[in-house]
Amino acid sequence: MKKKAPSFEQLFIFRHLLKWTILTIPVAAVVGSLVALFLWLLDLATALQWHHQWLLYLLPLAGIIIHFLYQLWGKNAEAGNNLIMDEIHEPGGGVPARMTPLVMITTLITHTFGGSAGREGTAVQMGGSMASLLGKWFRLSKEDTRIILMAGIAAGFGAVFGTPLTGAIFALEVLAIGRIQYNALIPCLMAAVFADIFCSAWGIKHTHYHINTFVTGPNPFTLLQVDFLLLAKIILAGIAFGLSGHLFARLSHYIKEQGNRYITKNKWLLPVIGGCLIIILTLLLNTRDYLGLGVLPSHPGGASITTAFQPAGVSSWSWLWKLLFTAITVGTGFKGGEVTPLFFIGATLGNTLAVMTGAPVDLLAGLGFIAVFAAATNTPLACTLMGVELFGTDYVLYYAIACFTAYYFSGHSGIYPSQRIAISKPGERIDPESY
Amino acid sequence: MKKKAPSFEQLFIFRHLLKWTILTIPVAAVVGSLVALFLWLLDLATALQWHHQWLLYLLPLAGIIIHFLYQLWGKNAEAGNNLIMDEIHEPGGGVPARMTPLVMITTLITHTFGGSAGREGTAVQMGGSMASLLGKWFRLSKEDTRIILMAGIAAGFGAVFGTPLTGAIFALEVLAIGRIQYNALIPCLMAAVFADIFCSAWGIKHTHYHINTFVTGPNPFTLLQVDFLLLAKIILAGIAFGLSGHLFARLSHYIKEQGNRYITKNKWLLPVIGGCLIIILTLLLNTRDYLGLGVLPSHPGGASITTAFQPAGVSSWSWLWKLLFTAITVGTGFKGGEVTPLFFIGATLGNTLAVMTGAPVDLLAGLGFIAVFAAATNTPLACTLMGVELFGTDYVLYYAIACFTAYYFSGHSGIYPSQRIAISKPGERIDPESY
Repeated sequence: MKKKAPSFEQLFIFRHLLKWTILTIPVAAVVGSLVALFLWLLDLATALQWHHQWLLYLLPLAGIIIHFLYQLWGKNAEAGNNLIMDEIHEPGGGVPARMTPLVMITTLITHTFGGSAGREGTAVQMGGSMASLLGKWFRLSKEDTRIILMAGIAAGFGAVFGTPLTGAIFALEVLAIGRIQYNALIPCLMAAVFADIFCSAWGIKHTHYHINTFVTGPNPFTLLQVDFLLLAKIILAGIAFGLSGHLFARLSHYIKEQGNRYITKNKWLLPVIGGCLIIILTLLLNTRDYLGLGVLPSHPGGASITTAFQPAGVSSWSWLWKLLFTAITVGTGFKGGEVTPLFFIGATLGNTLAVMTGAPVDLLAGLGFIAVFAAATNTPLACTLMGVELFGTDYVLYYAIACFTAYYFSGHSGIYPSQRIAISKPGERIDPESY
Repeated sequence: MKKKAPSFEQLFIFRHLLKWTILTIPVAAVVGSLVALFLWLLDLATALQWHHQWLLYLLPLAGIIIHFLYQLWGKNAEAGNNLIMDEIHEPGGGVPARMTPLVMITTLITHTFGGSAGREGTAVQMGGSMASLLGKWFRLSKEDTRIILMAGIAAGFGAVFGTPLTGAIFALEVLAIGRIQYNALIPCLMAAVFADIFCSAWGIKHTHYHINTFVTGPNPFTLLQVDFLLLAKIILAGIAFGLSGHLFARLSHYIKEQGNRYITKNKWLLPVIGGCLIIILTLLLNTRDYLGLGVLPSHPGGASITTAFQPAGVSSWSWLWKLLFTAITVGTGFKGGEVTPLFFIGATLGNTLAVMTGAPVDLLAGLGFIAVFAAATNTPLACTLMGVELFGTDYVLYYAIACFTAYYFSGHSGIYPSQRIAISKPGERIDPESY
């Protein structure tokens, strides 16, 4: 570090902060409010789906509508999160504002007709496209446009899950594997905090999860006041979480690739086939547990994220079914993102592993919740902080161990093809791209 | 992200994990045990200093002894933390094993005779030098030597404060301003966790801090369910924390520079002058509150880190006095590091600001504790996590806001001259060094 004469640099920093406070508050207000509207409509769509089960049989038709909506008005908006990440890496044509209504409407259609998808993709895309629009209005420079796009991601993510710190770190961490850069730290944090405030102000309540304090009795593996048996179970679970995140990313890419390979002309056939597969699987399994968002059970005794925190709350293979349902839904062109389904996959896999190994069910469900997401998106630090924001602090070290282990074992193929590789994971022969 | 054929990369990752488990456990065992020994001896040294107050008058003599210990046996070990960071950036001659006994003994001398210093520098140096020694025995490659050195830092930091996750992130974050790279994520986490386990196994207990839950009454600034007045106070406090961290870094560098400028021949005069200044200041202020570590008060009613969490626990200028005492102690060649004094400066400044602004005293003391440290070392993420590990999760967002704001306002001159600049802070005209 070079030494230098004092230079009133603090004044520049103050000006920077002031500028970004003024810039991020409108972004946060717009994105936070849109996310609130979206979450409210999403609840209605979920209720509609639960109460009119026949809607599922229209899922192929819904897929056609989504397909043509993007065909007619979508332009490059179809690329979704990846377009936003590309624009941050190399600013080009910008993120179109039309992405916001398109992704919101198509996500609501997906959920109304029973597709298995999430909501973070929608929130992040609304965040990115609104930030891009405001950036144009403010006539921002190229560098500032990059920062406001990252702030838009942070705002969307922070508001949709009620986890502003996670949103800010996620926006910084998701761009490249193996590295966080701090250039947009404060704008992202401010955008996420204010977006969460605006979203909550509309009366949106987020689901609460709880990991009970547990006391493991002394066992032969308790040494030096540490339960090494539990630690070993958590590391093994972390490996399983990483592999399942990897499996999900590869399977959804595979479905997309194969679909585009065999269906070259009538692309609308792809969501039709996807919708039909979802219907067939639902009938075969004779359960609707894997349709929709999956935060709450659609009926008493159903599998969901919240029930995964209870012993016997889900079945042993719930995680695999949800993985399959979501990979088909997302891979064949339905909208909404993958993160909430990843929470579902992780929490239910954690539940299964806890039952198998005799570990506390709510702890492993919570660890799976964050770690499968960490694996599939390559964001272990954001997910560790998400554990803190969602489940409290008692097990922060376990969050980190599970997320970092899962991150290592997920390989380099996350769910975002536009994510770059800054620092390669060990054992890998991919050269980091210059970035 | 390039797509690639499946390649059993998980097997390589498993091998990597296994290798680093085997490598880090001995590092953690040695470093954790040494830190335990050091903390035990440090308690004895502190007690000795409290009960035999005349020892302070021997501080100049102690300075001479420390000086000649390093002259005779130190070689390049004098550079301390900076040597370890340099070796990580560009592996060269290695970190000498003699650094461990030297820094432990000289730190104990500093504390016994009343110097105002910390303990993290000692722990980090013991961690780095023992990791270097073990790395040589294991015949590690250049790249692996870098990783084991980082693991050594993580182990020392994690064990000395009982905060393993903070230790791991600190080791990754401290190397360069504005960036975290994940190449040593798992080795650092394992080393820190195990070092903390080994240290605790020797019966070491860490001080507990507590921020009470508070309810701010509704005030005219409470909008959208958020107390914006409290938020504004925290941001202003963050700026003050950043500036005081900056002031500390500059002042201790300045003292060192001026000392070396005017004392060119008889270098042992520098600690003599430093020791005399400490004695004079102590007599002038008529208090011994700013000597030594400062975690606990030396007498009922004395200022310390723990009393800073109580209203009226410290005086308004405690932070400035501790800053001055520590800059003199460390700047004139005494040993022990700066972090615990930075906690002291931050907690007491937080106390003062809380009293001035009517904010909760324990909250602002806690925020200052972590944020001044974040500012002086440019490690905002590690310090946010330290808040979680030390004070619990309720205010994680406030931790982040305080630490990130302080980080921005501390400029580029942290306490470690070997820290590089990866991403320049805004308003700054330093070009990032290629790294």
